Amino acid sequence: MQLGLIGLGKMGFNMRERLRRHDIDVVGYDPRPEVTDVPSLEALAEALPAPRIVWVMVPSGPITRQTIENLAGVLSPGDLVIDGGNSRFTDDGPNAELLDAKGIGYVDAGVSGGVWGLDNGYGLMVGGNDADVERALPIFDALRPEGDRADGFVHAGPVGAGHYAKMVHNGIEYGLMHAYAEGYELLAAENLITDVTGVVRAWTKGTVVRSWLLDLLVKALQEDPDFKDISGFTQDSGEGRWTVEEAIRHSVPAPVISAALFARFASRQTDSPAMKAVSALRNQFGGHAVQRAPNTEGTGA
Amino acid sequence: MQLGLIGLGKMGFNMRERLRRHDIDVVGYDPRPEVTDVPSLEALAEALPAPRIVWVMVPSGPITRQTIENLAGVLSPGDLVIDGGNSRFTDDGPNAELLDAKGIGYVDAGVSGGVWGLDNGYGLMVGGNDADVERALPIFDALRPEGDRADGFVHAGPVGAGHYAKMVHNGIEYGLMHAYAEGYELLAAENLITDVTGVVRAWTKGTVVRSWLLDLLVKALQEDPDFKDISGFTQDSGEGRWTVEEAIRHSVPAPVISAALFARFASRQTDSPAMKAVSALRNQFGGHAVQRAPNTEGTGA
Amino acid sequence: MQLGLIGLGKMGFNMRERLRRHDIDVVGYDPRPEVTDVPSLEALAEALPAPRIVWVMVPSGPITRQTIENLAGVLSPGDLVIDGGNSRFTDDGPNAELLDAKGIGYVDAGVSGGVWGLDNGYGLMVGGNDADVERALPIFDALRPEGDRADGFVHAGPVGAGHYAKMVHNGIEYGLMHAYAEGYELLAAENLITDVTGVVRAWTKGTVVRSWLLDLLVKALQEDPDFKDISGFTQDSGEGRWTVEEAIRHSVPAPVISAALFARFASRQTDSPAMKAVSALRNQFGGHAVQRAPNTEGTGA
Amino acid sequence: MQLGLIGLGKMGFNMRERLRRHDIDVVGYDPRPEVTDVPSLEALAEALPAPRIVWVMVPSGPITRQTIENLAGVLSPGDLVIDGGNSRFTDDGPNAELLDAKGIGYVDAGVSGGVWGLDNGYGLMVGGNDADVERALPIFDALRPEGDRADGFVHAGPVGAGHYAKMVHNGIEYGLMHAYAEGYELLAAENLITDVTGVVRAWTKGTVVRSWLLDLLVKALQEDPDFKDISGFTQDSGEGRWTVEEAIRHSVPAPVISAALFARFASRQTDSPAMKAVSALRNQFGGHAVQRAPNTEGTGA
Repeated sequence: MQLGLIGLGKMGFNMRERLRRHDIDVVGYDPRPEVTDVPSLEALAEALPAPRIVWVMVPSGPITRQTIENLAGVLSPGDLVIDGGNSRFTDDGPNAELLDAKGIGYVDAGVSGGVWGLDNGYGLMVGGNDADVERALPIFDALRPEGDRADGFVHAGPVGAGHYAKMVHNGIEYGLMHAYAEGYELLAAENLITDVTGVVRAWTKGTVVRSWLLDLLVKALQEDPDFKDISGFTQDSGEGRWTVEEAIRHSVPAPVISAALFARFASRQTDSPAMKAVSALRNQFGGHAVQRAPNTEGTGA
Repeated sequence: MQLGLIGLGKMGFNMRERLRRHDIDVVGYDPRPEVTDVPSLEALAEALPAPRIVWVMVPSGPITRQTIENLAGVLSPGDLVIDGGNSRFTDDGPNAELLDAKGIGYVDAGVSGGVWGLDNGYGLMVGGNDADVERALPIFDALRPEGDRADGFVHAGPVGAGHYAKMVHNGIEYGLMHAYAEGYELLAAENLITDVTGVVRAWTKGTVVRSWLLDLLVKALQEDPDFKDISGFTQDSGEGRWTVEEAIRHSVPAPVISAALFARFASRQTDSPAMKAVSALRNQFGGHAVQRAPNTEGTGA
Repeated sequence: MQLGLIGLGKMGFNMRERLRRHDIDVVGYDPRPEVTDVPSLEALAEALPAPRIVWVMVPSGPITRQTIENLAGVLSPGDLVIDGGNSRFTDDGPNAELLDAKGIGYVDAGVSGGVWGLDNGYGLMVGGNDADVERALPIFDALRPEGDRADGFVHAGPVGAGHYAKMVHNGIEYGLMHAYAEGYELLAAENLITDVTGVVRAWTKGTVVRSWLLDLLVKALQEDPDFKDISGFTQDSGEGRWTVEEAIRHSVPAPVISAALFARFASRQTDSPAMKAVSALRNQFGGHAVQRAPNTEGTGA
Repeated sequence: MQLGLIGLGKMGFNMRERLRRHDIDVVGYDPRPEVTDVPSLEALAEALPAPRIVWVMVPSGPITRQTIENLAGVLSPGDLVIDGGNSRFTDDGPNAELLDAKGIGYVDAGVSGGVWGLDNGYGLMVGGNDADVERALPIFDALRPEGDRADGFVHAGPVGAGHYAKMVHNGIEYGLMHAYAEGYELLAAENLITDVTGVVRAWTKGTVVRSWLLDLLVKALQEDPDFKDISGFTQDSGEGRWTVEEAIRHSVPAPVISAALFARFASRQTDSPAMKAVSALRNQFGGHAVQRAPNTEGTGA
């Protein structure tokens, strides 16, 4: 089977490798000459016999949209495009429509696994019509983990469902990471605990909290106990925000996922405007003009 | 009426002044010679004819406890001690017992109003038996705001109830301040809003959110728009913590008050250990060893 | 001065009355014959000499949009439309554009005060250009509370700023109400507190938490102690959601306002799907198949 | 090796079985005749040659304390007691002291794994002095999962550290479960997702969120899709509360774990007193006495 793969960055590069290991004949395109297989989208289209399947693995938003538009210009009716990036699910409908006008099919695929996917396989959540998804199954089978297909792949629903499922996956991911993070901080704050890394490692087998993320936390602590070389400044890539937005749209309480998201926002502030306001209010009613008497004052605010 | 007042700090100093304005004959004691009326607790006891009322206004915890113990040594059966500091309500039972063994009565009083209480009067919440509270009413009437007694004073229940009510008052205060603070931060972040202080000021009359704290926020913004001279580093004095602990004890959900409390904790961290852990986890699955390709990568974590 | 007023519901009806008390000559339109002054928008336009000012006070969303479109058909160049409803600020740009194409001006006005505004005046936050806002000042002055204009009115910025400020106002309102609500629940849960209503009432003067909302809480408790006749089922009207969405857009942590919003969502669920999932998980690892032994088991989950 | 095991409930019963499979000679005691090996604690002490090791696996709190006291009466100097229940870490010091006065050693052990521990092994976190822990290693090795000892066992610190680590483990567990639960609820609310169980199952391999809890969630969904037979009413067993209390003591922000805890509290309320207060406030300013006009009202609260 052949596949066009657009975007050979952190994810796409590894995916090309995994697909090739599984005997998929991948033609990759990337603007960087040192990694690309062909010089242009046109060349990619030419290199693949119709009907083609082309996987798009570029940053979500305008770049994905532009790529879809470019593909609409070089592909043929009967071809199929899969957007495997972290697009917002609301982008999928317009992308599918644009391609459908040219007779080109569309599937959205949420892909999880990070750099470990090359060897472990990628968890896949896809949206689209049955025929399109069926047609791309060999690609999905090559990318997903070994074993039962349903343990690492789902046809979650129509176009948009794949990215929706991936969005929720990432929202959960925010919550999971922050739960471990709060626990870590508490362990590190308590003098009784003389071996924080040891405690976290001891959780990796047999316990209720064992998980892949926990394994990674152990690895991270073993590489850098006390996280001396790591800043708490943490980006967010969009899915956490979208998850909370969807929770609001569906009237679903999401205190855990939103707390994790807000903690990332706060991590990027050198000082909190909100806390300045709180501090200013305390000054107002606490009265700094009045001299404080050491050890003899009550506070009555 | 006469009153002994121990602790002439930020709160006690002003309270002595307000009591004197209302013709209460106050004998104040403080270890600082420049503010005290008498040189010692013994002298304070001597200066007051029995049966005495002595108001304790010192920092909560060990200092209050020590003061109660000292008073037990110098006061007489039939006297009455009022703890007006921000003691944890669980301290009141033991304090009352200690004094009761000497035949001395005990009332706990939560006092709110900050430096503004001198002129506005103090909101008072007291706990104790009916006779003790009744006996101290002239003191409470002098301290509380003018007008209907029930608008600024309550006999909330038996010993402990006053401090319990004050604790909940302060817990609410945390939530109120943080609600305003979040709104302020959002206004300040939005370019459409060209006059943040003006918006906040426009809320002070007619709106649903008008309050005394809002008036103080306007004052603070007028003194220092953008809070340039204010750090977000914010202490907490105990009642917020106790409120959340009580919420836990009573199985009462307290997401707002706890969020406000946690934001204070976070304001005092230069970097968040929890966010270091989150950041470390993202590094682990995102794979920094792999070169990132600008503009051509999807992320699949 | 004359004003056309569209929408004579809960808010508009009272506003007509207040405006008339302040000698504004109001022509009101409402589809309900029993309250309307004129039978149609056309009649309203005819009844007002150009250049006209027309205030729209109808539900936000499609009804406001439709009203704006209808007004574009019956008004004349040089007229001015004010949207005083709770529109999302993102609706204001399109509304202004639509009217601008006809030479009609547009101002958005956030209005706060509820049913009390008739007598107290309404807090007003407006957005628009200087000339349009200036022109409508007599209307704003009639609606706002007596006293200093800046205490109940603000020209917050260009078109959209008024509704933005109102949105943030309501977001804060969610947080304030929930802070009081948590405190109330805790007071009601604690046996030491023998007079919950009395405690809340005692906070209305002198304390840090005194506010108009607190006054209303006292009123509500006096009418129905223990809230026996009130369901916790609580709607939300949009601004709380929008505030959290804006917080997300601006990367502003909003734990308090979002917690208050989520509590409303939860109040409308008869059972929580999320808690069913938690309960199901506990069943899975806790093992219901194994007989529990009364008083002799440890749990090791 | 021999072991006395007190408490043959849900956990203890299985642990006896696992220990016997690993050739530990267990003498179990339980008040229920149908499961006990000996009729009394005295008989248990007699059945074991000194120096003895006795594992206590009974409910935390007074029952554990009473059991420790009873053991102090029947054991001999040089014996060792291990408390494997979910005791609060603050109980360990007093327990250790009581036994130490008799020359009996004490180790606290947090045990995780639920009913699955019988076959999978139990995650163990222990606190105590080196000699005591060393001496009990064969017991720990029999209980913990196969493989590297450090992956399922840790000597976390002195007495108390084991239960502290277990407490944090369970706090994290609350957060993890609630993160999955929020994601589940959102998936179930979204029409695009036609196969909720399928999506969750597809996360079990390759993804970032894969975990043992996720495997259990799949199992639960397969047994009862839509959780029709499950109530959201969810108990909490103490560790979640203690974790938040410790977070407060250490000034560690814990928004995720506390949110998960508060959601459990809320799940047990038929109606929320706090939401009644919010609803009452909305009634107050929204004015139900005024007739609402369908479709023609703005709201200005």
